Amino acid sequence: MAYNGVLAQYGHLMDLPAHTLPITLLEGNTPLIPMPGLAAELGGGFELYVKFEGLNPTGSFKDRGMTAAVSEAAGRGAKAVICASTGNTAASAAAYASRAGMRAVVIIPDGKVATGKLAGAMAYGAEVIQIKGSFDDALNLVVQISQRHPIALVNSLNPYRLEGQKSSAFEICDTLGAAPDWLCLPVGNAGNITSYWMGFRQYNTLKQSGLPRILGVQAEGSAPLVIGHPVEHPETVCTAIRIGKPARGEEALQAAEESNGRIIAMSDDAILAAQRQLASHGVWVEPASAAGVCGLVHQIRTGQLDPKGKRIVAICTGHGLKDPDIITRQAATPRALPATLAAMEEAILGER
Amino acid sequence: MAYNGVLAQYGHLMDLPAHTLPITLLEGNTPLIPMPGLAAELGGGFELYVKFEGLNPTGSFKDRGMTAAVSEAAGRGAKAVICASTGNTAASAAAYASRAGMRAVVIIPDGKVATGKLAGAMAYGAEVIQIKGSFDDALNLVVQISQRHPIALVNSLNPYRLEGQKSSAFEICDTLGAAPDWLCLPVGNAGNITSYWMGFRQYNTLKQSGLPRILGVQAEGSAPLVIGHPVEHPETVCTAIRIGKPARGEEALQAAEESNGRIIAMSDDAILAAQRQLASHGVWVEPASAAGVCGLVHQIRTGQLDPKGKRIVAICTGHGLKDPDIITRQAATPRALPATLAAMEEAILGER
Repeated sequence: MAYNGVLAQYGHLMDLPAHTLPITLLEGNTPLIPMPGLAAELGGGFELYVKFEGLNPTGSFKDRGMTAAVSEAAGRGAKAVICASTGNTAASAAAYASRAGMRAVVIIPDGKVATGKLAGAMAYGAEVIQIKGSFDDALNLVVQISQRHPIALVNSLNPYRLEGQKSSAFEICDTLGAAPDWLCLPVGNAGNITSYWMGFRQYNTLKQSGLPRILGVQAEGSAPLVIGHPVEHPETVCTAIRIGKPARGEEALQAAEESNGRIIAMSDDAILAAQRQLASHGVWVEPASAAGVCGLVHQIRTGQLDPKGKRIVAICTGHGLKDPDIITRQAATPRALPATLAAMEEAILGER
Repeated sequence: MAYNGVLAQYGHLMDLPAHTLPITLLEGNTPLIPMPGLAAELGGGFELYVKFEGLNPTGSFKDRGMTAAVSEAAGRGAKAVICASTGNTAASAAAYASRAGMRAVVIIPDGKVATGKLAGAMAYGAEVIQIKGSFDDALNLVVQISQRHPIALVNSLNPYRLEGQKSSAFEICDTLGAAPDWLCLPVGNAGNITSYWMGFRQYNTLKQSGLPRILGVQAEGSAPLVIGHPVEHPETVCTAIRIGKPARGEEALQAAEESNGRIIAMSDDAILAAQRQLASHGVWVEPASAAGVCGLVHQIRTGQLDPKGKRIVAICTGHGLKDPDIITRQAATPRALPATLAAMEEAILGER
């Protein structure tokens, strides 16, 4: 009954070099949580699930791709990995590198990073270097360094990341017995939508598991795939998808088109409302992770997506614990009451 | 292949009333991560695993007990749950209550709570009330309120919490095929050590799965079970086990004795070192969660525990994301370098 991670489970379906040496934290095998209460709020008559990717070892879906990328790097003897990142990728790279006994170097842009967001990378022992430049500058530097030194690049340009991330599509099909009718997910750098589509197509060829229609959702202030050109200064509270020039933009548009789906943009306010709505049914995700559900709610309410009789899966990519500040910023500090039963009863029962 | 949570999996082995109505977030089924690198650092020659309970839906092991407690409450028609808590219990209670469509009321002591630690409870929509009093005052109040009103008490006095938490012992036996030789875990309120021992004994009676010796570990500033009397003002960075009067102290001492194990105390510095050591092998846990490994390291180094040929499981109760501040407080702010290849190469390669 032991579960041994996504390479043990699905590695035979991934295009990885023979030298790959599995480095795992038992990522994957995340719960597909039924959301009957949320489905009812949206009119009912359909099945809705959340694939809660925030329950991967470092708290985000990045671990699925990172196990593949670091396993490949370890297998060819790399002693270090490098990436440009301000969040989930850095934490995942640091965790898998430490697991492999490799150094992890994380390059971050100047002044754009809350120290708290980097706690994960620091905890796992990454060497964090801040540069006087932009995220693009950081990315250019890590590419150059990886070309000149035996340091493995594990940014999303690394093709093995996509191979590992396909595993979530396989899991969904295995849990449901087939692909869902719709798959809703956030779109930032567009690697994840690309690998889900790769995974569903591959499984369908092998097992006739069917294909979902894909609803990709960007944040309005960072929606290059919706407006049709790069965004120079993307702005959104959804830090995990605040990306103006997606590395896999073409593939994402192709996935949406081939699947007879679409990519839409939602406002930050609507995405934060979806975050609260998910939490009100027991699933707390980071803001970007609520984008898929947000888009689904919008499409159903405006009649652009008829869910009746359908089976719908929303991908929630990271745990709410990744960004607690967004909650505490919105919440009032609790007022202090006397420690008496009367005061408690008044506070708890009096208002209702 | 669908996994449906700990009540679906092991509910038949839990002493729960017939009216229990399963409320689940697909808690449990957490990975048992092999730690060969850490075992090698401790001299090798034995199997070491971490049961990573931080990968439960709200980020801690509390979800196993909370699904049982809230399911029982929902089944008898309770419309609200209440608890005194400053952290993991509050978040878990809030999540399961929201899932059940019930109110969650959390009473917290005055001035002792970082707003950030409550983000989870707030995110899931709990009503947080601060009182001008201590944690014990808060606990007394929630007990009184639950006795006078149809509001279910979900603090650890609730017996169904222990029933649900037994599921982790069952999972460990099912994954390994038998109980481990040693089980190492943090001890605060002592409910968890109590329910592990209940679970292992029950499984052994049913399936001859064997019994582990139990090493319980408290923090030195909060070690009532080691010093033999309550601690009026417990102090430790391990907030999750900062408890001076454990609710299940007697049961914990009995579990240690019956299992031919022991309960020891470790310093905060040693526990934080164990936290770093775990993270250096890819597993980032909150400080309290490193106590079990810390005690194991100490017992092996001092020759009080011979691991050779043994199979040892350490329980890590909560994710590192629960307490990022402890990391950022210890870390230096990264210095900013020029965005040039030369500067990067100097920084990355120059020092080695």
